Amino acid sequence: MEKKLKVYADRMSQPSRAVLTFCRLNGIEFEEIKIDTSKRHQLSPQYTDVNPLRKVPAIVHGNFNLSESHAILVYLVSAFPGIADHWYPTDVFRRAKIQSVLDWHHSNLRYGADHYVINTVLGPALGHPLNPKAASEAEKVLSSSLSNLEKIWLNGNGRFLLGGSQPSIADLSLVCELVQLEVLDEKDRDRILSPYKKVVRWIEDTRAATNPHFDQVHNILFRVKMKLQHPRSMDAEAGTETSSKMGRHSKM
Amino acid sequence: MEKKLKVYADRMSQPSRAVLTFCRLNGIEFEEIKIDTSKRHQLSPQYTDVNPLRKVPAIVHGNFNLSESHAILVYLVSAFPGIADHWYPTDVFRRAKIQSVLDWHHSNLRYGADHYVINTVLGPALGHPLNPKAASEAEKVLSSSLSNLEKIWLNGNGRFLLGGSQPSIADLSLVCELVQLEVLDEKDRDRILSPYKKVVRWIEDTRAATNPHFDQVHNILFRVKMKLQHPRSMDAEAGTETSSKMGRHSKM
Repeated sequence: MEKKLKVYADRMSQPSRAVLTFCRLNGIEFEEIKIDTSKRHQLSPQYTDVNPLRKVPAIVHGNFNLSESHAILVYLVSAFPGIADHWYPTDVFRRAKIQSVLDWHHSNLRYGADHYVINTVLGPALGHPLNPKAASEAEKVLSSSLSNLEKIWLNGNGRFLLGGSQPSIADLSLVCELVQLEVLDEKDRDRILSPYKKVVRWIEDTRAATNPHFDQVHNILFRVKMKLQHPRSMDAEAGTETSSKMGRHSKM
Repeated sequence: MEKKLKVYADRMSQPSRAVLTFCRLNGIEFEEIKIDTSKRHQLSPQYTDVNPLRKVPAIVHGNFNLSESHAILVYLVSAFPGIADHWYPTDVFRRAKIQSVLDWHHSNLRYGADHYVINTVLGPALGHPLNPKAASEAEKVLSSSLSNLEKIWLNGNGRFLLGGSQPSIADLSLVCELVQLEVLDEKDRDRILSPYKKVVRWIEDTRAATNPHFDQVHNILFRVKMKLQHPRSMDAEAGTETSSKMGRHSKM
């Protein structure tokens, strides 16, 4: 039985990026298997055997398979030795608080960010029409979530969630969610994010604490952003412009 | 410092009922503090100190406070001695699978059931107009979630999720979600639930495994259902009819 971890992921999916970044950060040996959801590869019979829910990410570790990124991150902490305690502390109170943030994430930050991006920019690539009304409703959930992030989860002395001085799996998961806003029009992204100064700083701090892996895994977003903004230059493979834009955009 | 657990709950909220039922089942001494969300008690300054997110349920245990029902259930397993292993097994693989079901719950079963019930029946009591279009979209998510429950999570030899022979916190949490469908019109509830025979049996099995606590905590739903169906008889406090109906409805 081959025991090397397999990570089935689409780098356009924010929870996929969280799992990939975590594995690289912690020196976990793994094979990345690309599931291109824009080509509906997650619906293939082969992938249905891996994850019958047909979502990314999923892992196979020996004969054990698992889906849902939060559950995967928690499993990796238990299954691989030597992962630093700050990622998912053994202290029962800190661990419970991290779990609470991760649970909150689903119907708040994830719902808001994901539905906003799908309904303003990415929908057509995934076969959904853009929907301004749904986008406007999603923006309300997103803004309220950002406000709670700023006032509650980032209301501590440390640079990270819950006052932590080092990132946990909740920081990684939530920041991967927010970085997808990079594909929005600059003015939309600014309108949504800029009122939340602590959130903006925390995104940068988490990125800095997890680089170079964070940027490497997220590079695809900057390429997509450019394709959305400059379809002709991308089609012509304008190498020089690409590099200079990448430099600028990778600073988010 | 008083260490007795305080549970802030509204029995009309399905995650509140899951936490209350779990505490009673496991002999955890606690004080239940009612937060009536139909009267917006969750927005009071006193409750905001307990849970700044202003949602139910939340707990206070000594000087530790925590929100999000899944995180609370996991915390209770760690913080109170003697809770049977089947609720949240120490085995890393079973625990990871239970976590995966709980994570899946948020954007699937919870989203579908909650939005369907709010948009067909309960909205007005919470200050929202009924919305047939939103109800129809929620029904799609709910039906797809029920189908996945039936085909994937209940596709084992045992009577419970993931092939378990005894319930876990995932069984309790998901069944509390589904029991809220009790307040729907009988025909809507039948249309939605009856195609999923394993789901219907599993709801009954989980209820039987957790009674009498389960029914005691859920009694409020049967009273609300009756009020919705027979507003006049309830206003007249028709005691006899009430008892006989309760008997029938408590069999769900």
